[in-house]
Amino acid sequence: MTPKTTVDKILSNQPRQPASAHAVGSAFAPSNIALCKYWGKRNDQLNLPVTNSLSISLGNLGATTRIWEVEGTEDRVSVNGQVLSIEVEFHKRLSAFLNLFRPQSHTRYCIETTVNIPIAAGLASSACGFAALVRALQDLYQWNLSNSDLSVLARLGSGSACRSLWEGFVEWERGEQEDGFDSKGVVLDTLWPELRMGLLMVDEKQKTISSRMAMKQTVETSLFYCQWPSQVNRDLLNIKKAIQSKDFPLLGETAESNAEAMHALMMTAQPSIQYTTPETLKFKTQIWDYRKDNRASVYFTQDAGPNLKLLFLSQDESFLQEQFPNLQVIVPFQKISSQLGSKS
Amino acid sequence: MTPKTTVDKILSNQPRQPASAHAVGSAFAPSNIALCKYWGKRNDQLNLPVTNSLSISLGNLGATTRIWEVEGTEDRVSVNGQVLSIEVEFHKRLSAFLNLFRPQSHTRYCIETTVNIPIAAGLASSACGFAALVRALQDLYQWNLSNSDLSVLARLGSGSACRSLWEGFVEWERGEQEDGFDSKGVVLDTLWPELRMGLLMVDEKQKTISSRMAMKQTVETSLFYCQWPSQVNRDLLNIKKAIQSKDFPLLGETAESNAEAMHALMMTAQPSIQYTTPETLKFKTQIWDYRKDNRASVYFTQDAGPNLKLLFLSQDESFLQEQFPNLQVIVPFQKISSQLGSKS
Repeated sequence: MTPKTTVDKILSNQPRQPASAHAVGSAFAPSNIALCKYWGKRNDQLNLPVTNSLSISLGNLGATTRIWEVEGTEDRVSVNGQVLSIEVEFHKRLSAFLNLFRPQSHTRYCIETTVNIPIAAGLASSACGFAALVRALQDLYQWNLSNSDLSVLARLGSGSACRSLWEGFVEWERGEQEDGFDSKGVVLDTLWPELRMGLLMVDEKQKTISSRMAMKQTVETSLFYCQWPSQVNRDLLNIKKAIQSKDFPLLGETAESNAEAMHALMMTAQPSIQYTTPETLKFKTQIWDYRKDNRASVYFTQDAGPNLKLLFLSQDESFLQEQFPNLQVIVPFQKISSQLGSKS
Repeated sequence: MTPKTTVDKILSNQPRQPASAHAVGSAFAPSNIALCKYWGKRNDQLNLPVTNSLSISLGNLGATTRIWEVEGTEDRVSVNGQVLSIEVEFHKRLSAFLNLFRPQSHTRYCIETTVNIPIAAGLASSACGFAALVRALQDLYQWNLSNSDLSVLARLGSGSACRSLWEGFVEWERGEQEDGFDSKGVVLDTLWPELRMGLLMVDEKQKTISSRMAMKQTVETSLFYCQWPSQVNRDLLNIKKAIQSKDFPLLGETAESNAEAMHALMMTAQPSIQYTTPETLKFKTQIWDYRKDNRASVYFTQDAGPNLKLLFLSQDESFLQEQFPNLQVIVPFQKISSQLGSKS
C-alpha cells in the first residue's frame, strides 16, 4: 500500500474533478497540541505511528486554506500572504502531497493559507495546515467524506494532522492494519470548558533539528526507545481517566511526565537532541515552584522546540497572566461551547 | 550473606585488636568521578550494583582519615575539624558501618577526616571517605589486606567507594556472586598524563534529593530503567577502547552521553528527578558550542547534582580557564606520574 493507492481507495466513489472550472475550495482546521505525544513511526511512507497519541484542539487557532486549480508548471503556495519559493522544503512537501490528488498529471494548484498561530513555534502549524488542506480539497471537489476518512488523508501529509479534524480531545489510534486504514483520529465526547492552555514563547536563537528528523534519530539510535510504548500505554490510560473524571492534577501530571519522557528519550539519541534551553528550564522551574508552594495548579507540555505550553484551569488564569506577562492564553473549548450554546 | 558476615570472612585471618592501646590508624584515599556511571543496585544491603561502572581517581584530591579507639557511649566524628552531631545522617551511616568492625560491642571510635574537595558537591566525598576509612582501619589493626579486599569492605559503606582504592582508571566489576565477593574495583594499567578534569561549580539554591534516594526512585519507577544495562555495556566498551587507544573524543563523547542518559532516566522517574538547573544547562550549551565551533575539545560529565565536571586535554586548559574563570582544574595522573618519575 502506497499513499497513492490509499487516496485512490478512499476517493473511489468521489468526484475527482471540480464542479466548475472556477471552483474554489475553502476550509478551516484547528491546531492541536498532544497531551500524550506521537513520537516514532512504524511506517515512514504512510506516517503510521508506533503508538496511539492524544491531543487537544485549539478552537479558533489554526489554519484557513483556499485551493483552486490553475494552469502552469508549478503549484503556487502562499502562507500568510507570503508566496513560498518552490525551493522551500514546505513547498516541496505540499506539492508531493498534492500529487496524490491531481485530476491530470499537469493539473497545478494555487493554495493560500492563513495561519493565526506562530509558525514553526511547535504549535503544530503543519498539522492544522494539512488538515485544512484536505478539507479544502473536499470543498473544491465536493466529496462527501467523513472526518474519519479525511483524517486518514491528512495523516498522509503530516502524522499529527489526523488529529486536527475535530474540536476538543482527539485520540489518534495507531491501528493494526498494514495499509493504515485504521490509523486515524477519534474524537472524545468530553467537554472541559474551564481548561486553559497558555503559550509561553522562549526566544530561540539557533535553528534546531526538525521534529521529523528528531523522531527518526530517536527511534534509530536511542537504546531506550523500545520502552516508549509502555510509557504511552500508562499515560494514555491516566489521561483518559483524568478527562473522564475531570481530575485536573492527574491530567497535568501525566501530560507533563509524558512530554518529559519524550525529551529524555531525545537526550539519549546519538547524537543527543536537546530542545530545552536554559530559558525553557527557568520557566519549568518556576512552574514546579508554583505547584510546590500551592500557588497554582499548573503543568506544562513541550514539543519539538524550546517553547512551553502551560496547562491550567480558568481559576489560575489571572495569577499566571501576572507571572508571565507574555503568556498567550488559549481556551480550547470556547468555540465548541459557544456553538453548543447557540444551538440550545 | 550480610555485611557483617562479609567483613568477618575477609578478616578471618587478620588481627581484630589494635597492636597497642594508643595505636592510631591513618590513611588517604582519592575521590573518583565515574565516566560510566553506577546507577542502580541489585542488592541494597550489600551495595551490589546492577551494572559495571568505570571511574577516574582524582590524584591528591580526596580524604585523609585518622581513627583510634576511645571510651564512651558514642563514636566521635569530625570532618574538616568540625565535630558532627550524632543526629547527622552521615554520623549514623558511619557508626552503622563501624559496627561491622568493633572488637567489642562497647568499643567506640574517634574518626577525624579531612577532605580537600567541596563536600556534597557531587565530588564523591563519601566515596573517598569510606575508602580512606577502611585503609585507616587496616593501618590501625595492622591488617595485610590487598586493595581488592579493601575495595569489598569500602563498597559496604558506599558503593562507589570501592573504586577509590586506586589511582587512575578503575572499573567496578559488578560481579555475579550473591555474596558480593566478586563485586569490587579493578585498576586499569593505562596512564593518561594529558587528561584534565575541570570542576565547574553551579550555585545550588535548593537542597535536592540524595543520590542514594534518586537511584532507588529511578530503579523503582522509571519504565526505561530496564534498558540502562544496554547503555552501560555499549558505553563501557567504547570508554575502554578510547582509553586503550588514547582516543579522547571517543572518551569524551561516551562519558557525556552516559551521564546524559543517567539524567534522562531520572527525568522519567515518578516523580521526575531534575538535578540540572538553568545555569547547568547554560554551561552545557557553552560546551556544545565550543565543540561545534572547534574552539576546544571539551566534554562534561554530571553526577547527582547541578555541577559539571569537564573533560579535556592539557592543550585546551588555558582556553577553558579563560572562558570559565572559576574552573578548578584537576590533573588526575599528576600524583601517579610524579611517583613513577621519582622511581626512575
